[in-house]
Amino acid sequence: MRTKILLDEAEMPKQWYNIQADLPTPLDPPLHPATGKPVGPDDLRPIFPMELIRQEMSQDRFIPIPEEVREILQIWRPSPLYRAHRLEKHLKTPAKIYYKWEGVSPPGSHKPNTAVPQAYFNMKEGVERIATETGAGQWGSSLAFATALFGMECRVYMVKVSYEQKPGRRSLMRAYNAECFPSPSTMTSAGRAVLEKDPDSPGSLGIAISEAVEEAASRSDTNYSLGSVLNHVCLHQSIIGQEARAQLAMDDTYPDVVIGCAGGGSNFAGTAFPFAGDKLTGKHPDIDIIAVEPTACPTLTRGLYAYDFGDIAGLTPLMRMFTLGHDFVPPAIHAGGLRYHGMAPLVSKLVKEGTIRAEAYHQNEVFEAARTFAMTEGLLVAPETAHAVKATIDEALKCRKTGEEKTILFNNSGHGYFDLSSYDAFHDGKLIDYAYPADLIEESLRNLPKVG
Amino acid sequence: MRTKILLDEAEMPKQWYNIQADLPTPLDPPLHPATGKPVGPDDLRPIFPMELIRQEMSQDRFIPIPEEVREILQIWRPSPLYRAHRLEKHLKTPAKIYYKWEGVSPPGSHKPNTAVPQAYFNMKEGVERIATETGAGQWGSSLAFATALFGMECRVYMVKVSYEQKPGRRSLMRAYNAECFPSPSTMTSAGRAVLEKDPDSPGSLGIAISEAVEEAASRSDTNYSLGSVLNHVCLHQSIIGQEARAQLAMDDTYPDVVIGCAGGGSNFAGTAFPFAGDKLTGKHPDIDIIAVEPTACPTLTRGLYAYDFGDIAGLTPLMRMFTLGHDFVPPAIHAGGLRYHGMAPLVSKLVKEGTIRAEAYHQNEVFEAARTFAMTEGLLVAPETAHAVKATIDEALKCRKTGEEKTILFNNSGHGYFDLSSYDAFHDGKLIDYAYPADLIEESLRNLPKVG
Repeated sequence: MRTKILLDEAEMPKQWYNIQADLPTPLDPPLHPATGKPVGPDDLRPIFPMELIRQEMSQDRFIPIPEEVREILQIWRPSPLYRAHRLEKHLKTPAKIYYKWEGVSPPGSHKPNTAVPQAYFNMKEGVERIATETGAGQWGSSLAFATALFGMECRVYMVKVSYEQKPGRRSLMRAYNAECFPSPSTMTSAGRAVLEKDPDSPGSLGIAISEAVEEAASRSDTNYSLGSVLNHVCLHQSIIGQEARAQLAMDDTYPDVVIGCAGGGSNFAGTAFPFAGDKLTGKHPDIDIIAVEPTACPTLTRGLYAYDFGDIAGLTPLMRMFTLGHDFVPPAIHAGGLRYHGMAPLVSKLVKEGTIRAEAYHQNEVFEAARTFAMTEGLLVAPETAHAVKATIDEALKCRKTGEEKTILFNNSGHGYFDLSSYDAFHDGKLIDYAYPADLIEESLRNLPKVG
Repeated sequence: MRTKILLDEAEMPKQWYNIQADLPTPLDPPLHPATGKPVGPDDLRPIFPMELIRQEMSQDRFIPIPEEVREILQIWRPSPLYRAHRLEKHLKTPAKIYYKWEGVSPPGSHKPNTAVPQAYFNMKEGVERIATETGAGQWGSSLAFATALFGMECRVYMVKVSYEQKPGRRSLMRAYNAECFPSPSTMTSAGRAVLEKDPDSPGSLGIAISEAVEEAASRSDTNYSLGSVLNHVCLHQSIIGQEARAQLAMDDTYPDVVIGCAGGGSNFAGTAFPFAGDKLTGKHPDIDIIAVEPTACPTLTRGLYAYDFGDIAGLTPLMRMFTLGHDFVPPAIHAGGLRYHGMAPLVSKLVKEGTIRAEAYHQNEVFEAARTFAMTEGLLVAPETAHAVKATIDEALKCRKTGEEKTILFNNSGHGYFDLSSYDAFHDGKLIDYAYPADLIEESLRNLPKVG
């Protein structure tokens, strides 16, 4: 029985798919917090290259992937599509389960699909350095990998508590010649301000974003790069879903259900949007598309659809998206990549309009699903990815009850080999299933910016 | 430009290649240390399944790979063959560099190529548990992965100092449901004896082997499994070289040079033996085959070709091989997988007879080569693998001088993502280039067993 469906390098998509072209109504524009007016290219010029600004705002259905970008992506792409025979057999389900395995990239997840083009487009416009933030380190390692291959410099501000807990990730960045500093640091005024108030601050993603953005805005040789949320990031990740659709077609099939975990929304968008486009244009109107999140950070299942900042400090434009409020700091669940108060505006709009639906799960049931997957399929997935595994197993078990032979596709967005301490905590019974943090969210939502 | 040459699953080799069939003279047999007589199947029955004993002694040129084994290997095989365009360009060499990327396996190296069949053949003969040892953890994780997929139990004795320094590896074994204990432990008489003499013993591979072998010998439900050195392990690893030869043929080429790092010899043997067989049978008599080792553990370049034990305690049969003496404990270089006093008897014989040659390098030049590779090809390799990278770069630079357009194949035996602290030590300038440990080796070689 075939385990993997492979695409030849020559068949790797030559274009990114931009779902903005197929939306029934256009995205609400990002707004300048001071004026309430739509943000324009000039507002973004200090920290982004023109081509990425153009992609962010484009309504073109397809945007070509430059040959130099494809040559780097070829190091691991096209990624394999797996048929999960052993998992199906274990679950005694008539469903057919497929997954894209993005853990084959050198950094170990889907993130370099966008790190590589972002580094490339900066390089083409003469930018020599990129600054960014990272939480547990997957985004920072991916950008370090990409900048190394294009001969650029990279500085990563890493949330301090993660910098101390996950030395492997910062060592990886260093091996790719990037600088990695714990944030808050003394190198920016944002960092110094935090340290003055709280010298022992453990740091947060919001603080790290502020440091990286400040550095990029204040140095003409440095731009900023973000690993999720934005339209151009969802665009770059569409290579996942396009490849999956072609690989499923090689098996003469098309999915009934598409599932991905959602934190900032980029791996989910990349997997789902080619199929969501088929749904919106009437080609496959009944496809069920599910974004999966943690109950401890229930952005899509419990947030408001409103304009909000992308960061805690309020440095970014206001974006219309599902949000728990930019002040919200989620409980310290192990799926660090899903601990974001907001969600990609494109994903948010499609959830709001019913094209996509969302599910939320607790930590322990998610790790239990990951264990089942490891013992049947042999792959140990990242805690984030395990949310998609859990939802997939649930859909497959529903099929067992109803007898439906649904074809289920999920994105296996990354391996868990850098998250083994989380697996230890699970095995030791130390993972907490946090109650829905209602009070925190209520308070945070009261601080949503007023948009006139 | 094509980066990867892929083989379809259906084209994965259906047989292992046994070079014993093509040796000019047969291997010297392993000897019972007490009697000096050749070891027979009955001597090995307490700890190995009959099929593996049969494979160990077989003279058949090809041994079929069972379908159930192929189905598991399919999770990551056939592994990709890469053309190293960027490295070639960086070196300005006319040589064509190819490498097999074995880092795609779930444990991250070539080791599951043998862990999977070993677990399988034990399972088929009703064995429920396997005990083994592991140093830094790559072998233990690979066996844990394999036993998980066949529903078997696994106990790993891990060298204590590594158990404490590399928590990631033991967490990985745990995630695959294996037990992992620091050795010396109180669970065997061998372990208790060591602890009585030295309660603070940091452990060693020799001690851990003794514990695992004792457990397997004393329990009827438990067998022992070894990750390198033995003939059947070299046999299982031949899938690497067979695939590589087929992939190179898809590019209308055949290697002039084949390179691999050598510790126990199994990844090297797996890559090289299909080509060595072509050399021995006159098909490609001029191919240059190079085994690469550390100067700190110079088994092939400075050892004696003699009968010696495979372990420190003298529990194994005597094998004729290149050895630095079973008492030799190499300096603590970071390529832990290459710190073995002996070498596979099959590899040793072919080196002795000139079919294969050997090179040795210091730590720093090896890590420097790995850095070059990471910054050009994007992959971070294991410190062991980096020895093969170094030799490959040297051969490519020779071609730059002579203008020869040699085709060089090396085995990229594993990724370095679990060895990042070693890379940190390199970046911090803390790696020691040990002088050739002449005195230690001289003393150790005086203790070679006398074979009548």
